[in-house]
Amino acid sequence: MPAINPDRLLADLKELRSIGAVETGVVRPALSEKDMEARRWLAKKFEAAGLSASIDGVGNVYGRSPKPGPALLIGSHSDTQPRGGWLDGALGVIYGLEIARAMAEDPATAGLAVDVVSWQDEEGTYMSCLGSRSWCDTLDPEAEKAARNGSAGMSLTEAIAKAGLTDVPRQTIEKDRYLGYLEAHIEQGAYLEEGGLNIGVVTGIVAIRAMRFRFHGEQNHAGTTTMKRRKDAATALFEVAHRINQEFPKVAGERTVWTMGRLSVQPGAPSIVPGYAELDLQFRDTDESILDKFEALAAEIANDVGKGKVRVEVERSRTPVKASFMDAGFQKHIAGAAEATAPGKWQSMPSAAGHDPMVICEKLPCAMLFIPSIGGISHDFAEDSHESDIVLGCRVLADAAASILQERRNA
Amino acid sequence: MPAINPDRLLADLKELRSIGAVETGVVRPALSEKDMEARRWLAKKFEAAGLSASIDGVGNVYGRSPKPGPALLIGSHSDTQPRGGWLDGALGVIYGLEIARAMAEDPATAGLAVDVVSWQDEEGTYMSCLGSRSWCDTLDPEAEKAARNGSAGMSLTEAIAKAGLTDVPRQTIEKDRYLGYLEAHIEQGAYLEEGGLNIGVVTGIVAIRAMRFRFHGEQNHAGTTTMKRRKDAATALFEVAHRINQEFPKVAGERTVWTMGRLSVQPGAPSIVPGYAELDLQFRDTDESILDKFEALAAEIANDVGKGKVRVEVERSRTPVKASFMDAGFQKHIAGAAEATAPGKWQSMPSAAGHDPMVICEKLPCAMLFIPSIGGISHDFAEDSHESDIVLGCRVLADAAASILQERRNA
Repeated sequence: MPAINPDRLLADLKELRSIGAVETGVVRPALSEKDMEARRWLAKKFEAAGLSASIDGVGNVYGRSPKPGPALLIGSHSDTQPRGGWLDGALGVIYGLEIARAMAEDPATAGLAVDVVSWQDEEGTYMSCLGSRSWCDTLDPEAEKAARNGSAGMSLTEAIAKAGLTDVPRQTIEKDRYLGYLEAHIEQGAYLEEGGLNIGVVTGIVAIRAMRFRFHGEQNHAGTTTMKRRKDAATALFEVAHRINQEFPKVAGERTVWTMGRLSVQPGAPSIVPGYAELDLQFRDTDESILDKFEALAAEIANDVGKGKVRVEVERSRTPVKASFMDAGFQKHIAGAAEATAPGKWQSMPSAAGHDPMVICEKLPCAMLFIPSIGGISHDFAEDSHESDIVLGCRVLADAAASILQERRNA
Repeated sequence: MPAINPDRLLADLKELRSIGAVETGVVRPALSEKDMEARRWLAKKFEAAGLSASIDGVGNVYGRSPKPGPALLIGSHSDTQPRGGWLDGALGVIYGLEIARAMAEDPATAGLAVDVVSWQDEEGTYMSCLGSRSWCDTLDPEAEKAARNGSAGMSLTEAIAKAGLTDVPRQTIEKDRYLGYLEAHIEQGAYLEEGGLNIGVVTGIVAIRAMRFRFHGEQNHAGTTTMKRRKDAATALFEVAHRINQEFPKVAGERTVWTMGRLSVQPGAPSIVPGYAELDLQFRDTDESILDKFEALAAEIANDVGKGKVRVEVERSRTPVKASFMDAGFQKHIAGAAEATAPGKWQSMPSAAGHDPMVICEKLPCAMLFIPSIGGISHDFAEDSHESDIVLGCRVLADAAASILQERRNA
């Protein structure tokens, strides 16, 4: 098994952290100056590791092994949230780099091909998973044209021009080269920490659906309009929201989540009976049958409450994200490596957040490995993981990658 | 009894409506050019009616009878909401004018003193009941200095200067002159219309209290944060709001109202578990003991829900408006006049909206008369009343005023 170098791994992670560092976090949104600086730094690191480096027309950074395939592609993304943590994305990219180096240094694995990648804009500054979509050739040209960064007031096309990438070719998947894609990531939740575990072997990525309720009441004077006469849009909203929180637990699975994170009440004055209201509901699970039941329940509750004085509409408010499943064979390799390195300290688990493998698994077998997030915190400057977990995770992924490639060579 | 002139009454109301008319409504907010134009028009009308007219330093318009007291002051306000109806305020002012004229024309009542007034800014463009507060000498100088019209970006001081009133003296109450103050108004609700009635004899004006709930949870990722781990501020808000709507009806009186018209959930994104939320609750009744019970219930519910994972705070969010009560003797005169003119077609009732008598009743006996609002609509361009109701209301108030003044003369 290849021997990863913990000091080199941690030093590179910290050096990458310094590009766009703000307080304890990192501000390196896709295609920003700091993001491009980090990508140029990565390309140099890839070259130094003996890989052939390039940055393509959307900003994906590749490090291609000189070894012939079949290869594994290992990586993640180096762009961040507007106020991001230092490990979200960066961890998986530097794991790829360190694994390529460790493999090349060990005569037993030096012949195996590991390519490394940092995808562009996984976080959706312009369009979520922009880089992996481009590589998989599943990027919708209309959606690309429409993509904008609201807070910077810039279109994706303008941002690509500003980064000097307009005339740079975009690389797409070489299917014959790859056995598959591996990505390590911080968990961003607290299951591992709460379970006293060090490694999560990801089984799949949850499906996400969302619905929007619209409440059509009648705006009126909050003094002179009797309770009986009112058609209060907020009252109907409260009833729907409360019933969702009462009814959903009855059909939810252990890991199902639902959120009502956005709502509005019009006109929004203490002395006016609200005439209109909106409520957004989002729910996630890998088991789509639970989400089907949620949708049916939401429609039933809307229909019930809508029999009162306020008309209630409900509809899907985003294109559903289907559940995606990680390759069963790859999972066995990761689980085997985890059990060998940290016996009894790992578990299989779904990912409740979206990641590039959601896109890539339509084209290639994928697998993901999680390491614990301290306090389950992410998308925040406070995001962190213990160094021992960072090192352990890289060791397990390196062993799994070697084991996958060796199995193929021996087949 | 004095004979009011229906054609003259309606013609004056319509002429006043034309000043600031927009579609079917009126836009004449306090101290605007249209408001001051209407006040100058009123002053001319008062003079033509044999009254001595003046506009004081806040814009109150007085028409003083040449007859010695004891007098009745009759009126309302001629300023409007930003998009106001044509009768809110205007009705009561033109009633005062018509009653003064009718009294003077009838030898039996020509010796009685009726002064007429249009108060400034009842609607609170700068400060609600500005004019009556100024007249009662209960205007807080600090509050006056701070008063601003948010939408026009102008302070009250600037608006008074722009209207040319800075150096005009402010008139204050001559207590010895007045038996009391009478005001007619549209109901702004639908009790009279629903009951098939023409006249409401106002018993009092409701007390108003308001509370603000603050929910302190923990912002988090809507995918990776399990339901069990969440401290969802919106979920706690929904529970409090729902329980209020369940519990309040158990202690409410027939006319109690409560409203949750403003709320916010932070950061307000579909994919983020809300970390903070606010909810405003307002409630009104003439019976303060019911409002006491509501306050206790709100505190109890906040305390209960706050035992969960989200910390809940609740506090009074505005200075409570105390219930104010109309003079019992005046009410008898209005009821007697109503019964004589429209037998069985009147009722005693509280006002659920605020009016200048709320301020004036601290200094003088007050009474109010309501006429029906079509569909209960007000503070809207669609506000209207039937002409027959407008005429009947003026007749009843004229008879009541004569009866009050005659009773005093005969005493």
